[in-house]
Amino acid sequence: MEKPFVVGIDIGGTGTVFGIVDSIGNIVSKGSIPTVKHADINSYIDELYEAIAEQMVKLGGLEKISGIGVGSPCGNFNSGTIENAVNLPWRGTIRFSELMKDKFSIDTVITNDANVAAIGEMKFGVAKDIKNFIMITLGTGVGSCIVSDGKIIYGENNLAGELGHICIDRNGRSCGCGRKGCLETYTSATGVVRTAREMLFATSKDSLLRNIPIECITSEDIYNAAVNGDEIAKEIFEYTGRILGESFSDFVAFTDPKAIVLFGGLTNAGDLLYQPIVEHMEKNLLFLWKGKVDVLFSELKEDNAPILGAAALAWEFAC
Amino acid sequence: MEKPFVVGIDIGGTGTVFGIVDSIGNIVSKGSIPTVKHADINSYIDELYEAIAEQMVKLGGLEKISGIGVGSPCGNFNSGTIENAVNLPWRGTIRFSELMKDKFSIDTVITNDANVAAIGEMKFGVAKDIKNFIMITLGTGVGSCIVSDGKIIYGENNLAGELGHICIDRNGRSCGCGRKGCLETYTSATGVVRTAREMLFATSKDSLLRNIPIECITSEDIYNAAVNGDEIAKEIFEYTGRILGESFSDFVAFTDPKAIVLFGGLTNAGDLLYQPIVEHMEKNLLFLWKGKVDVLFSELKEDNAPILGAAALAWEFAC
Repeated sequence: MEKPFVVGIDIGGTGTVFGIVDSIGNIVSKGSIPTVKHADINSYIDELYEAIAEQMVKLGGLEKISGIGVGSPCGNFNSGTIENAVNLPWRGTIRFSELMKDKFSIDTVITNDANVAAIGEMKFGVAKDIKNFIMITLGTGVGSCIVSDGKIIYGENNLAGELGHICIDRNGRSCGCGRKGCLETYTSATGVVRTAREMLFATSKDSLLRNIPIECITSEDIYNAAVNGDEIAKEIFEYTGRILGESFSDFVAFTDPKAIVLFGGLTNAGDLLYQPIVEHMEKNLLFLWKGKVDVLFSELKEDNAPILGAAALAWEFAC
Repeated sequence: MEKPFVVGIDIGGTGTVFGIVDSIGNIVSKGSIPTVKHADINSYIDELYEAIAEQMVKLGGLEKISGIGVGSPCGNFNSGTIENAVNLPWRGTIRFSELMKDKFSIDTVITNDANVAAIGEMKFGVAKDIKNFIMITLGTGVGSCIVSDGKIIYGENNLAGELGHICIDRNGRSCGCGRKGCLETYTSATGVVRTAREMLFATSKDSLLRNIPIECITSEDIYNAAVNGDEIAKEIFEYTGRILGESFSDFVAFTDPKAIVLFGGLTNAGDLLYQPIVEHMEKNLLFLWKGKVDVLFSELKEDNAPILGAAALAWEFAC
């Protein structure tokens, strides 16, 4: 094969990581540049170009790259743009794919983070043989991507799959979106920390978490306390899993998926989260689906998954 | 055109209606046969054949029929079967399309009622130019069909779009499915009647509805009372519309539709239902969608819509 590689790029608010990836999902080389210092998109792309070109010297040069795939907050697959991403330094609508093509002379495809995660799972992960699934990313927020008959649902405005903002309690927790009770206020990494604070306030029960200043508790601390047998920490995962499981029982009624695939830091909690999710999903599922829907945790390494997903996007649409 | 017609068939628990339909949606002839008396599927198809053949005498005979489309409870588009339809006289899995093809020598396509309604709206109704919408049928139950990029989402088991069984209150009304708080226990025609009973019990306020024995109140009675200015009746529609509007604000976050299309007896309530739906949907929508999602009531005549939908299915897939 003359062009054996693609580049998978993951744009984050602070930094951008990229990998040179072959067609079977080996990341043969990795690099990163800062995102935050580039208020000017052109200087950002210039630095990205230098960094990728440098990695490619030992791999035969940029002419060995068949396509570029990008995952970005607010990345729009249809228009190739990044639109009003609050956590990125660029305002308005950035014609990202076009600017990349101009600089690299290589076709570039972009989409949002959750879609990239779903594409990665389809090509290299647990969703390899699954045509219908819902991808849920449990990070700072809750992202999602709905795959139906092997294809991502984009919707009318490229906004499909905002399941982090499904309302689970109209009088619930305040959300950054201005409303109340959104799923992500309970089940994101930050939501879990809110649960911890609420529970620690609500009881005087002993807890390892009381050794940490309450404003400094992280979801990792909660996990560590739970594996050390801490009752409150275990209760936090039980509560989070129940809310996810109940929500999934409704999600299933939309697109009749074979599986719900979870990715992100919180899934490191393993069974602590998995058990209550499955228990409460099964308990609340309509009889038609009982025992039929799998809950799967991603097996891709968290650092590599966004690169692999973006690379899979490139292999599918930019080559 | 040598074969200018299709047959659109709507199978109901009591009766089956059919129409001979041309390519622009004119129902040139209509007929019906009883469903309920045919415990044997073959005798049912025999009677259907006779009835359709009779209608076709004046139209040039069965050879003028290009395809047959069927809407049925539990109709499975992929397999051509009717599976475990509790309201139909046939048990187990009926290979309906195959039996029809054997009898008529005409290709037959089948799907469920809500899908037929969506297809009808796409070809002949308010969704003609809409690629992304959610169809909601408000009848004895609440049915739905999700259309994404012009295509119906079927899902892994052909069960996508069971939105009548989304849970709006985990401690809510008992549903026929065995669970609690399903959307259809509040917003179907029977759900609205339950609301009427609850409200009439909860207050001693005057109401025209008190002139009707409480077990005999229908959704039509409530509509008639509301248009005559009855406060409780108006409150019932306000309550129903609020629940629908709140639910729609979540539905939108799944597939990012341009519109939500409503069909069924309850939509005869017009503004009484439309106003609270739109008000509460807008109030609860994530900012991304505010002012962007249309709520549309079907304009197809209720009697004709299932025939037209089934005919549209035939034109698309059986011709």
